[in-house]
Amino acid sequence: MVTPSTNRLRALFPILGWAPAYTRAEATSDLIAAVIVTIMLVPQSLAYAMLAGLPPQAGLYASILPLLAYAVLGTSRTLAIGPVAVISLMTAAAVSQVAAVGTPEYLTAAITLAFLSGLILIAMSVLRLGFLANFLSHPVISGFITASGLLIAASQLRHVLGITAEGDTLPRILLELAQGLNGTNAYTLVIGTSAIAFLFWVRKNLKPLLVRAGLSQRPADLIAKAGPLAAIGLSILGVVAFGLDGKGVRIVGDIPAGLPPFALPSFNPSLWLQLLPAALLISLVGFVESISVAQTLAAKRRQRIIANQELVALGGSNIASALSGGFPVTGGFARSVVNFDAGAETPLAGAYSAFGILGATLFLTPLFKFLPQAVLAATIIVAVLSLVDVTAIKRAFTYSKSDFAAMAATIALVLGVGVEAGIVTGVALSLLLFLWRTSTPHVAVVGQVPGTEHFRNVDRHKVLTEPGILSMRIDESLYFANARFLEDTIYDMVAGQPELRHVVLMCPAVNAIDASALESLEAISDRLHAAGVQFHLSEVKGPVMDRLKRSDFFDHFKGKVFLSQFEAIQFLKENAPAAVETPG
Amino acid sequence: MVTPSTNRLRALFPILGWAPAYTRAEATSDLIAAVIVTIMLVPQSLAYAMLAGLPPQAGLYASILPLLAYAVLGTSRTLAIGPVAVISLMTAAAVSQVAAVGTPEYLTAAITLAFLSGLILIAMSVLRLGFLANFLSHPVISGFITASGLLIAASQLRHVLGITAEGDTLPRILLELAQGLNGTNAYTLVIGTSAIAFLFWVRKNLKPLLVRAGLSQRPADLIAKAGPLAAIGLSILGVVAFGLDGKGVRIVGDIPAGLPPFALPSFNPSLWLQLLPAALLISLVGFVESISVAQTLAAKRRQRIIANQELVALGGSNIASALSGGFPVTGGFARSVVNFDAGAETPLAGAYSAFGILGATLFLTPLFKFLPQAVLAATIIVAVLSLVDVTAIKRAFTYSKSDFAAMAATIALVLGVGVEAGIVTGVALSLLLFLWRTSTPHVAVVGQVPGTEHFRNVDRHKVLTEPGILSMRIDESLYFANARFLEDTIYDMVAGQPELRHVVLMCPAVNAIDASALESLEAISDRLHAAGVQFHLSEVKGPVMDRLKRSDFFDHFKGKVFLSQFEAIQFLKENAPAAVETPG
Repeated sequence: MVTPSTNRLRALFPILGWAPAYTRAEATSDLIAAVIVTIMLVPQSLAYAMLAGLPPQAGLYASILPLLAYAVLGTSRTLAIGPVAVISLMTAAAVSQVAAVGTPEYLTAAITLAFLSGLILIAMSVLRLGFLANFLSHPVISGFITASGLLIAASQLRHVLGITAEGDTLPRILLELAQGLNGTNAYTLVIGTSAIAFLFWVRKNLKPLLVRAGLSQRPADLIAKAGPLAAIGLSILGVVAFGLDGKGVRIVGDIPAGLPPFALPSFNPSLWLQLLPAALLISLVGFVESISVAQTLAAKRRQRIIANQELVALGGSNIASALSGGFPVTGGFARSVVNFDAGAETPLAGAYSAFGILGATLFLTPLFKFLPQAVLAATIIVAVLSLVDVTAIKRAFTYSKSDFAAMAATIALVLGVGVEAGIVTGVALSLLLFLWRTSTPHVAVVGQVPGTEHFRNVDRHKVLTEPGILSMRIDESLYFANARFLEDTIYDMVAGQPELRHVVLMCPAVNAIDASALESLEAISDRLHAAGVQFHLSEVKGPVMDRLKRSDFFDHFKGKVFLSQFEAIQFLKENAPAAVETPG
Repeated sequence: MVTPSTNRLRALFPILGWAPAYTRAEATSDLIAAVIVTIMLVPQSLAYAMLAGLPPQAGLYASILPLLAYAVLGTSRTLAIGPVAVISLMTAAAVSQVAAVGTPEYLTAAITLAFLSGLILIAMSVLRLGFLANFLSHPVISGFITASGLLIAASQLRHVLGITAEGDTLPRILLELAQGLNGTNAYTLVIGTSAIAFLFWVRKNLKPLLVRAGLSQRPADLIAKAGPLAAIGLSILGVVAFGLDGKGVRIVGDIPAGLPPFALPSFNPSLWLQLLPAALLISLVGFVESISVAQTLAAKRRQRIIANQELVALGGSNIASALSGGFPVTGGFARSVVNFDAGAETPLAGAYSAFGILGATLFLTPLFKFLPQAVLAATIIVAVLSLVDVTAIKRAFTYSKSDFAAMAATIALVLGVGVEAGIVTGVALSLLLFLWRTSTPHVAVVGQVPGTEHFRNVDRHKVLTEPGILSMRIDESLYFANARFLEDTIYDMVAGQPELRHVVLMCPAVNAIDASALESLEAISDRLHAAGVQFHLSEVKGPVMDRLKRSDFFDHFKGKVFLSQFEAIQFLKENAPAAVETPG
């Protein structure tokens, strides 16, 4: 029986909705998808852990429990959770502020960051604050991801060259690379550059080649996705065969095999306070990335994503990551698309991947000991360069200067100052520019199109105007930020026209009038009245009118409200002498 | 000859515009107004200096040079500049954070605050940032002024009781008053309460009484305005006659006679940094108060106020105040109205008042020595209680819950935490609520009103809908904060209707589409297309359409754009079979 409480339980645990009807066919599809995703996820887990400044096993741990948590809590059938490049970069930026790389404190801080970020996501769900993510505009997110991609790629070059460097802004990274060129390890360089070349070749040419060789799309795709794993295998063989680790090639080293540990975050309040801004940004960026992917994929199959439940699912995944020695995770774009294309039907595909990664953690870690860091860096570089979206920059530039400004500021600050400064500035700037735009709305003096009841901008059309009557239209909701603008505009127009008797404000585009604007309308009415001019409104929308009627506005308002501008002009022309009053 | 450079000079120094045509009649009017304003300003200057925690002469100084500066720079003919209650309270709150009352550092900090605030105002003018003041919504400003009035009145009760207290939040002030009641000085209490009673009586009853006694309006008004001066005079006589200063009645004490000193602000960078937030808030609040008054009065005579030049004028006045030992000033409401009503014609009325205050500074200060602080407190209490506007609170409550929320938060925080916390929270909350409202706009499913070409909300009207076609209208500009909302809403609607073939979005209230919303529209179009549904737009505004055409939107957009919703439905009905495609 479906009672309200079962419904509530099902809303909180979507797995209860689909699991009872799970079929063998779905299980087969999910398993196939899981194999492909696992093959992709193993190298990524190791690489993103390195990017976050953490030991490689942390990446594996972050790809086990979080996937199980999402399978139980998530509303997307195909989203693949785990460590992703941008969030790993943000983790490194935040955690390196409070602890030194390689120390136990660094690991604890990363775990705490994941835990905090999980709590924030769940709190956002409970407080219905998911809408906050909307304030990350597309150009800001896109600029942020592009700049992060560049920054990550540049930062990984040090591993390809085999030099030590610590810079975390583009100018410093480039400077350090230039200074460190002498210290390049030749073996590392060869391994790193061949890995990059190989991975680019696989990405671009392998699949078409296999298809031409007679393979069908699906297995060709699967083999191409295994490129990074092949690079890893080959490079390990190379290192072992030629003893390259003794020749200065840095390797991953011992990775403890075994189940993910049970870990606890730090509950030190001062650490929480230090990590809070970063945790908030990671939550927001992670949520935006994750839900965008989820929506894209769900829409293709007409499935529903419930944003508020996604916050819970992502929050749960991050807490699961923290409790098992991982770091912040989110839904990854590339791997979710792979999961979808490979035919995943339910979140169990993710759970199966988790078991795949668990298998790797239990049995494959000894193999990764001799994996050169340069190869991990190469997989990162090849992956993140696809994040760089020059077209989006061009589009923003062509379409909207203010969107472009927010995007450019984000990119410049991410590269030059840091990820947090970049995204915060981008968000602040886009909000400010939006407020600025709505605070100086488009206002047109309008006249009647001859022979019609339509009124159009006098500057754009040949229209008739009535002496003594000023018709104007404002194309924006009226609220505090443009209330004074409206007053100023009207007073300015009236100041120059002593013969004026009526001002009619057309409001077809006014979707709301707040208390400030209401007072401004009253002030305009009163002041114009005192100067012998009557102030009227026309074409006020139903809901706006309802609200005005609820207030005492019409007790004071000295003008009229006309259903249409045409009606207003007709009335004022006919009643001109009566309507003209001397100042009070 | 009027050259461009003379024009620029006149814009910067409006005095050059009106002074050459100054007439004897205007001079007479200005002089009369100046006498009345001076009578009002002398007690206010002393009182607001006390409120700001400064020696009384600082109030006089702040009422001399700033008035001259405004006469040269201001665009309002009748604005009366000087110390005002709310800004004095903000000064006390800010300066007491960095120095102890009564120390030379306190005075220097107040001077520095005025200087900084002047620089900020001028910078706002140069950078055209005056629009920032628009973000102080009416309810926030009104709540701020009401709460400040209550806080000031409560804080002055200590002087009426003759007890020492230092609290600067309402709970602390009330607690200290309760604890200090035992220490009440009886003489002080008698003087203070009779002054309050007298001032309230004068304010309410004196003018009607005089008019009934046969005086005409103007002189009756003038005499009533002199009430505070009379209270001061009578109380000084009382103190001297009965030697009350020896009986625990605190008096103003020695005030140095003479010209305002030449003072310099501190140029200590850390002090500047500490005072910066307060200076910014004082600038914004002062500017909003001042320009509202200026606009109100100017509109009555159809004169123009140039907002950007007002920033310069107010900035110049504050710098003038700083350089002559004063503290932050702005245009006062009550005294400007008095100036206007008394017939002031040009800013020279203000300059004449400055000379009046200068006279008082040079010759009357010995008289003020025996002035009881309780009487100054009484004039403040009576003045600020008129700032408390309960009607505005009720109106906000009735009209708009979000405006009321911002107002209530402002009031609560000003009273409970402090003036700065209050106004910052109020502004942040009103911006957030505005963004929240526009991020969840009104969306209606619409249908055709039978027999017309109009489309209305299906929930509010009896309308016709077409099977397989979803018509919806969104009542807001589309931008980053509601882009996802739009996507979610449309996907949700589509998810439940497998028979759906077309979605038409009516856009008559969409005043702008930013880059984020553009991408959302593309995503909606693509995803619906993939699900076998065509997405169309109708009634897109001219400027919005222009911008869409400038982008590559129509290269990808799979639907159509119809001039009207009626046309859309007609077309889709006729072409239904052709328009239905299978997922791509």
